[in-house]
Amino acid sequence: MSDSKPLILISNDDGITAPGITALIAVMKELGDVIVVAPDKPQSAMGHAITINHPLRLTQVDMHPGVIAYQCSGTPVDCVKLAIDKILPRRPDLMVSGINHGANSSINVIYSGTMSAAMEAAIDGMTAIGFSLCDYAWEADFESIKPYIRQIAKETLKRGLPYGTLLNVNIPVPEDKKIKGIKICRQAQAKYKEAFEERQDPFKRSYYWMTGQFINMDQGQDTDIWALENGYVSIVPTQFDLTDHQRIAQLNQWNLHES
Amino acid sequence: MSDSKPLILISNDDGITAPGITALIAVMKELGDVIVVAPDKPQSAMGHAITINHPLRLTQVDMHPGVIAYQCSGTPVDCVKLAIDKILPRRPDLMVSGINHGANSSINVIYSGTMSAAMEAAIDGMTAIGFSLCDYAWEADFESIKPYIRQIAKETLKRGLPYGTLLNVNIPVPEDKKIKGIKICRQAQAKYKEAFEERQDPFKRSYYWMTGQFINMDQGQDTDIWALENGYVSIVPTQFDLTDHQRIAQLNQWNLHES
Repeated sequence: MSDSKPLILISNDDGITAPGITALIAVMKELGDVIVVAPDKPQSAMGHAITINHPLRLTQVDMHPGVIAYQCSGTPVDCVKLAIDKILPRRPDLMVSGINHGANSSINVIYSGTMSAAMEAAIDGMTAIGFSLCDYAWEADFESIKPYIRQIAKETLKRGLPYGTLLNVNIPVPEDKKIKGIKICRQAQAKYKEAFEERQDPFKRSYYWMTGQFINMDQGQDTDIWALENGYVSIVPTQFDLTDHQRIAQLNQWNLHES
Repeated sequence: MSDSKPLILISNDDGITAPGITALIAVMKELGDVIVVAPDKPQSAMGHAITINHPLRLTQVDMHPGVIAYQCSGTPVDCVKLAIDKILPRRPDLMVSGINHGANSSINVIYSGTMSAAMEAAIDGMTAIGFSLCDYAWEADFESIKPYIRQIAKETLKRGLPYGTLLNVNIPVPEDKKIKGIKICRQAQAKYKEAFEERQDPFKRSYYWMTGQFINMDQGQDTDIWALENGYVSIVPTQFDLTDHQRIAQLNQWNLHES
């Protein structure tokens, strides 16, 4: 652990054994000293969940040569909180989360454990980025996207980010395999249309599997969905102040002051 | 189920047996027809987690007279998704979540299952409100705050909210028991300083309990924390577009276009 090299914290939501985090570690080792604290099992779609009703385990593991790595029994956000309190020798210069197996563009940012880990780091004051590849496969091609990860991480390390902002980076898999470039975007307005699949257990009781169809309601060409569909890496500056500031004046006109 | 009365969906994160949801049901029954879909156990701090790796159970229960009520084995967001797909006869006129046992002001909005249920409803297009009482006790006094719940819900039903906005309502417990009024606020900038408590199990292995200290970094008098500390009900208009729109131009100046 050197004082002159940047210190980089890594987490994810697919778990410490995922190929995506291995690829991210490989790139970050070129840029600084790396500490990994990641879930000991897949924790996708955990959103910003934290564990308050049972205790957590934290175990040093040896699977990523040349870096300090721990697996944690909790959620991605738990990993970041434990790293801050128990492992990091100082505030890291950069926190990166991922590389997620699957897109976290548009409304997916709300459900994403990958982005929540990065957001937790940002809330604590770290410069943070969530990286996702638009390919759910375990054997997705992380090798060819490493130059984009490196460039974005290097530039972010150099420039920094103001408190309150983190980056949501999604990388497409174009049919012709040629990424056209990088676009700074806004989050597309989209939602899922739920379609739970109902089944019967051997005791004739119903149970439900969540499935759903992604509905893009946004025709803008400045969105992350547009960028990804057109072969660009999308970067959305993302914030955790959820206040709809423009709406405050309007609500002050409501009749809320007699009860 | 009448066509002329408003249809109101209720969920929470403390579970269907919590006194907070019982109080909310009592108020909403005065305003319309009520359908409840709530977790079958406490799901606090679940954030926007959804359940994708195992199936869900959904069971009609008889514990809330005069309303249709279901308990669900999943998270608060799962409850809303199941309600939409399997239970609601039409889009509700209002969705309310809570009343949470404990504050969801400031950065707590990020971790809150109560607010995530309301947010999921808003993403689907419902007019939605999360209600929280700043008292963690199971036996908190919900009776005396019912007029505020009623007034805010009635006014919101009447006015509606534009797509993209929901309300985060927190109700204080002033020392003199006198609530001064209602304030429209922004989310205060705050975070938790983690302090995990390390213990040893009977086999001498460490485990960690999450504890933390709330740090308000915001001196503004227009914040939810200020309102609550000064005896006012806080209402924060809350959005799920997490884009930091102001930062887009700045990021376009970065050197991201060579890789």
